Amino acid sequence: MIKKVDHIGIAVRSLEKALPFYTEVLGLEVQAIEEVDSEKVKVAFIKVGETKLELLEPTSPDSPIAQAIEKRGEGIHHVALGVDSIEERIKDMQEKGIQMLQDKTKTGAGGALVAFMHPKSTGRVLYELCEKREKGE
Amino acid sequence: MIKKVDHIGIAVRSLEKALPFYTEVLGLEVQAIEEVDSEKVKVAFIKVGETKLELLEPTSPDSPIAQAIEKRGEGIHHVALGVDSIEERIKDMQEKGIQMLQDKTKTGAGGALVAFMHPKSTGRVLYELCEKREKGE
Repeated sequence: MIKKVDHIGIAVRSLEKALPFYTEVLGLEVQAIEEVDSEKVKVAFIKVGETKLELLEPTSPDSPIAQAIEKRGEGIHHVALGVDSIEERIKDMQEKGIQMLQDKTKTGAGGALVAFMHPKSTGRVLYELCEKREKGE
Repeated sequence: MIKKVDHIGIAVRSLEKALPFYTEVLGLEVQAIEEVDSEKVKVAFIKVGETKLELLEPTSPDSPIAQAIEKRGEGIHHVALGVDSIEERIKDMQEKGIQMLQDKTKTGAGGALVAFMHPKSTGRVLYELCEKREKGE
C-alpha cells in the first residue's frame, strides 16, 4: 500500500530564484536537476529525510505547472505518495470511485511511474501515486 | 538542522467528510484526533512513513484555517519541517532575512513547539518549523 510521502511538488517560476532559500537559508542540498519532457518542467530534487521537495519550473507556457502558476501563483502543487504495484493501486482507486487524471501511468521525474488523482475526488489536494523502479528509493 | 518533513497540514471543512478518503480509499490509519485551542482547530493525524498528514478542521470562524478555506478553499495549507533547537533556528532564519510569523514558538498539535515563516520569504509556501519534545518523534 502507501509506504511514504515520496515527495512534495512545489511550483516555482524560476529554480535559480527559488533555490537559495532551500540551500542557503534552510541548509538543504540539491540532489539533482533534471528536465522531464512529458511535463515540460525542469525539476530540482531536495532530500529531506525519506521524502523530497521537488521544485518544478515550467519550461514552456503550456506546461501544466505554467498553467498552475498562472491560476494560483507559485507554491505547493502536489503531494506524491510512494506505492508499490501502481497499476493495481490505480485499479483499486477507480473501483473505490476515485477519478484518476490518467488511466495509465506516465513516466515522471527520476524515471518513476506516476498517476494523479483528480482533486475533486480527494478534498482538493492533488495527490500523485508514484512508484520508483530502483530499490531503496 | 532540518531532519524530515514532520507533517503536511491540509485544511478541510469537515474531518468527518474528509477522513473516509484517507482511511477507506488510501487504507491509512488515523493515529489520533486532538483539539488545538491556540489554532482553533480539530486535527486528525495520519501517519505515512516518517511523516504525517494532518487534517485541520476549524472549530471557529476566526480560526486561521477557517480564514484560509474562505480565501483559497480546502487543500494543502502548510508543510512542517522537523528541527532541533527551534529557538536557534528561528534566530538563524531571521538573521538570514526570513520574516517569521512568530518571533517566539507556539504550542501546536501534539505538544510540538512551532513557528511559521511568512510565505513572502519562502516562494509562497507556508513552511512551519516544528520541534517535537518526545524522543523518537
